[in-house]
Amino acid sequence: MQLFYAPEITLPCYTLTEDESKHCVRVLRLAIGDAIHLTDGRGSLHHGRIIDDHPKRCRVEIERTEENFEPLGYALTMAVAPTKNNERYEWFLEKATEVGVSRFIPLETEHSERRVFKAERSEKVIISAMKQSLKAFKPTLGPLTSFKALIATPFEGRKLIAHCDTPMTAEGKAYLASTLKKGEPTLVLIGPEGDFSKEEIQAAVEAGFEEITLGTQRLRTETAAVVAVTMVSVVNNQ
Amino acid sequence: MQLFYAPEITLPCYTLTEDESKHCVRVLRLAIGDAIHLTDGRGSLHHGRIIDDHPKRCRVEIERTEENFEPLGYALTMAVAPTKNNERYEWFLEKATEVGVSRFIPLETEHSERRVFKAERSEKVIISAMKQSLKAFKPTLGPLTSFKALIATPFEGRKLIAHCDTPMTAEGKAYLASTLKKGEPTLVLIGPEGDFSKEEIQAAVEAGFEEITLGTQRLRTETAAVVAVTMVSVVNNQ
Repeated sequence: MQLFYAPEITLPCYTLTEDESKHCVRVLRLAIGDAIHLTDGRGSLHHGRIIDDHPKRCRVEIERTEENFEPLGYALTMAVAPTKNNERYEWFLEKATEVGVSRFIPLETEHSERRVFKAERSEKVIISAMKQSLKAFKPTLGPLTSFKALIATPFEGRKLIAHCDTPMTAEGKAYLASTLKKGEPTLVLIGPEGDFSKEEIQAAVEAGFEEITLGTQRLRTETAAVVAVTMVSVVNNQ
Repeated sequence: MQLFYAPEITLPCYTLTEDESKHCVRVLRLAIGDAIHLTDGRGSLHHGRIIDDHPKRCRVEIERTEENFEPLGYALTMAVAPTKNNERYEWFLEKATEVGVSRFIPLETEHSERRVFKAERSEKVIISAMKQSLKAFKPTLGPLTSFKALIATPFEGRKLIAHCDTPMTAEGKAYLASTLKKGEPTLVLIGPEGDFSKEEIQAAVEAGFEEITLGTQRLRTETAAVVAVTMVSVVNNQ
């Protein structure tokens, strides 16, 4: 099944965007009468047929809609510092979307490698991964947010900060895969290549964040982020 | 700590390869008297000092050696079909090395996208990831191996085949993170974009492989492979 993205979909008939029309008609060579599947990225999966295979204004008629199609089942927000190399961060966005995530927040921290974030390209990667993995829920992408502002934002659920430094509290760092419980809404902070500063970790702990570890291995930022997403998935699937 | 790779290391004095010398002297600008750390990729971590900072023939004197430095603690072989896009496979090799793997075997299967495998470039990615993540054990890289030959090779431990098809056996597919036990040597097969064929799955089951699933999400080959590596790491760290 090929999935098309149509956040502005109209029923019962809808005209694909120029990009999606071109992909549909020129690349996939779909034609009048062929089945087509679209999602609005907000949980709806629409099944329809092509009624006009114009390569710039492909028109479809929706025959059947599934609401709330295969929701993730848990809420996960990943607040990760953008890496110096954009490709690495895009790799994370793609993989996290495939495995399961609700929301991305690019994080600006003391040791950040990137203080400007280009959302357009990242959105494309996320949409592409959503379509490719046949999901009807598009992870949302927040704006570049300062560490200070993020830890001050109210969040109902487990607030976790992963770091490589010695723990601030006597309890030490909990192993993410062991400490999380199924169904708990989760927010995970992952720092840049230079990690979070001691002041940042202290501030997070004071704001109610728990210090976590992702294991003994030394992981790049984007690797740590994908490992965290996978651990949360495992907790919610066992 | 910067780690240098020296599989042919001699003691007490050793001359870095031209590549490693250049990186050491020209890029990192290390000089006579500076501390340097090397690994042979077989578990030894050597600590020494630079005695001649020649940019092509940098010479070091080893002062102290740690044998069996931070072994992984478990044996994991990942037999994964090379993806059509080389970069994606290299992402997998890099991430798997960071998280923890003993051996890679590129797999040639019925639906393979790639029937030729260039080991040299992959070795460089693995070595680079090993150095960057400060490991003293380099994952080994086997040659491109046919599915038939691989499943016929004796292996002591859990033999697992991940696939997206309906299960062949009445037991169904076990969830990898739930079925594996800490310390069990593990071999995981991951198929190409077109998955394993029914005949391949049947043959693997007859050869003693267990069918596994990595969850409900639809994952790309390289994503599935990194998810599997992460799940094995979690099982061995809980």
